[in-house]
Amino acid sequence: MADNSATVGKTITCKAAVCWEPNSELVVEEIEVAPPKAGEVRIKVTASGVCHTDMYTKDGHDSEGMFPCILGHEGAGIVESVGEGVTSVAVGDYVIPLYIPECRECKFCKSGKTNLCSVIRSTQGKGVMPDGTSRFTCKGQEVYHFMGTSTFAEYTVIAEISCAVISKDAPLDKVCLLGCGITTGVGAVLNTAKVEEGDVVAVFGLGGVGVSVVQGARLAGASRIIGVDLNPDKFAMAMEFGATECVNPAEFDKPIQTVLVEMTDGGVDHSFEAIGNVNTMRAALECCHKGWGTSTIIGVAPAGAEISTRPFQLVTGRKWQGSAFGGVRGRSELPGIVQRYLDGDLKVDEYVTHSFPLADINVAFTLMAEGKSIRSVISL
Amino acid sequence: MADNSATVGKTITCKAAVCWEPNSELVVEEIEVAPPKAGEVRIKVTASGVCHTDMYTKDGHDSEGMFPCILGHEGAGIVESVGEGVTSVAVGDYVIPLYIPECRECKFCKSGKTNLCSVIRSTQGKGVMPDGTSRFTCKGQEVYHFMGTSTFAEYTVIAEISCAVISKDAPLDKVCLLGCGITTGVGAVLNTAKVEEGDVVAVFGLGGVGVSVVQGARLAGASRIIGVDLNPDKFAMAMEFGATECVNPAEFDKPIQTVLVEMTDGGVDHSFEAIGNVNTMRAALECCHKGWGTSTIIGVAPAGAEISTRPFQLVTGRKWQGSAFGGVRGRSELPGIVQRYLDGDLKVDEYVTHSFPLADINVAFTLMAEGKSIRSVISL
Repeated sequence: MADNSATVGKTITCKAAVCWEPNSELVVEEIEVAPPKAGEVRIKVTASGVCHTDMYTKDGHDSEGMFPCILGHEGAGIVESVGEGVTSVAVGDYVIPLYIPECRECKFCKSGKTNLCSVIRSTQGKGVMPDGTSRFTCKGQEVYHFMGTSTFAEYTVIAEISCAVISKDAPLDKVCLLGCGITTGVGAVLNTAKVEEGDVVAVFGLGGVGVSVVQGARLAGASRIIGVDLNPDKFAMAMEFGATECVNPAEFDKPIQTVLVEMTDGGVDHSFEAIGNVNTMRAALECCHKGWGTSTIIGVAPAGAEISTRPFQLVTGRKWQGSAFGGVRGRSELPGIVQRYLDGDLKVDEYVTHSFPLADINVAFTLMAEGKSIRSVISL
Repeated sequence: MADNSATVGKTITCKAAVCWEPNSELVVEEIEVAPPKAGEVRIKVTASGVCHTDMYTKDGHDSEGMFPCILGHEGAGIVESVGEGVTSVAVGDYVIPLYIPECRECKFCKSGKTNLCSVIRSTQGKGVMPDGTSRFTCKGQEVYHFMGTSTFAEYTVIAEISCAVISKDAPLDKVCLLGCGITTGVGAVLNTAKVEEGDVVAVFGLGGVGVSVVQGARLAGASRIIGVDLNPDKFAMAMEFGATECVNPAEFDKPIQTVLVEMTDGGVDHSFEAIGNVNTMRAALECCHKGWGTSTIIGVAPAGAEISTRPFQLVTGRKWQGSAFGGVRGRSELPGIVQRYLDGDLKVDEYVTHSFPLADINVAFTLMAEGKSIRSVISL
């Protein structure tokens, strides 16, 4: 960071990809970003991954989506200025914006049992900052925030409690991906499911999150990691991340849960669903071993879709649970995950199949929709 | 036990309640009970509770039920003789027959993660001893075993691994109830759910198992124990066992899960379903607190019935699991539960609302069907 005295306390005019309405392409516009208010931080975003949740809202599937808005929730950047009372983040800090904040004071944070901090959830869901207003305008119109992060902008404003301060040794154009997909998958294995050494694991869906589950299972020392996907093109990458075998449900006459139970002498110790399909979620539960097998749902299902199974599956010892952002408390734990990457323990670079300038962000969405990218990183 | 040299190694003729066919009254008959084979134990049954699972099979709801059979799985008695190679049980021992055995050698027992020993499951399900034959005959016809226990007979033969040896100080006409219902409820709380001091608990269904969940929650030190039942006549007994309040879903215009979430500032830490109704199972899950609430299914649903919910319930941190026989490893843990009763720590006597001789066993079934008893104990 160079001297930023020219911008502190002032509105910044910069570029951002604006989503004016559902089912439209993003438009790169000049926007105005107001200075951070009390408890807020303004960040110079330098890189952002493009994730399915951005597409989900862009394509109008999120009934609570607010427009116009600035999408992006898998970013990284450098603190440009801080609002009144901000103490845990300083100008020049490297940060990853968190779509699940960590206030350390609410019932959820204090419980020690969950990462689902709830303190700014209602305003975040409405596309505004905790005081109920937006920091973005474009062409005289207010533009909404998205997931409390809005990283498809050169500058964004987020809550202090949404800032994970990370090592300045971290390459931001890589570790931005730890702001969502990789952490979601790895964390689901290590934090939520607590996979143990020697466990047998099945992973349904081998996209970015799914291969991160594979990676987490490898870090946990799983003895078998079985990738499951209808697209065999994804098998090679899954194997690179640590899968020991891959199966394609389309190649079997029987349900995939039956196939997996037979392959594993009674079922897997842990399964993970990283697709968002309720039928796959059922298969993932039912391929678990009687007595202790645990299935963890990561994927986000379409609105209104329901999972179902016979309760006998649970009474005979299987467990059904879910994971959001890998159960990771962002401010407390994300810096350690970044360090694990810097130490060479965690793969991140390998996810970046494409890089684009902001001007080409719609190409990244097209590649993702076509299943041709693992992750595209937008540089800002 | 008096001298039993007259019977050892010989077939015993005695009385038993035989269920000749589904949907019929039980008939007290003279039966022949063969001596125990290798690895088996013959028991003089002195008392047996009557449980819903007996009625379920008697009334023809169990599609795998085998007839004619001798029902009963909540009994206690004294060992009359043992078969070849039996070392862990001796003549004169007080025992509770286990419908879930504990072999200590199978994958399940060795896992340390479950009580669902599987080693004799297939023969037990077919109504025979592990060697594939029955020890019971009546009027020249083979009679099937039931749940590996068949305690509605003056003498029964069970596997050695199905014998929990208990203190000789225990009154068998009371501790027989620890062979199923009470242990199922208390164990679900202490073993499966591991309720912690101060937790808020909801219990759906206040029959014998439900009030045992209430009792378990009291033992665990729960701060609130909310009983839920459509029959307010059950509230007084639930309060005696430790419920702090009871609610009747029929008295509210909104779903009971919404009522409970509002009553508890966001939901309960633990819920238990002790009815066997898939709609109640859903309510029990959905009344759990976001982030950590765990719902444990105990009740057995009708064949083919399915549970369902939106996966969002799990992704936001709720867990869905089940419990069978309270997660209790019978041979290892049931003796300690009996001791806890003898020490005055666990209520058992209070469950016995009725006692009958074997000749009146059908009255016990009628009372249970009408919801007029908590437990009837049959003396043999």
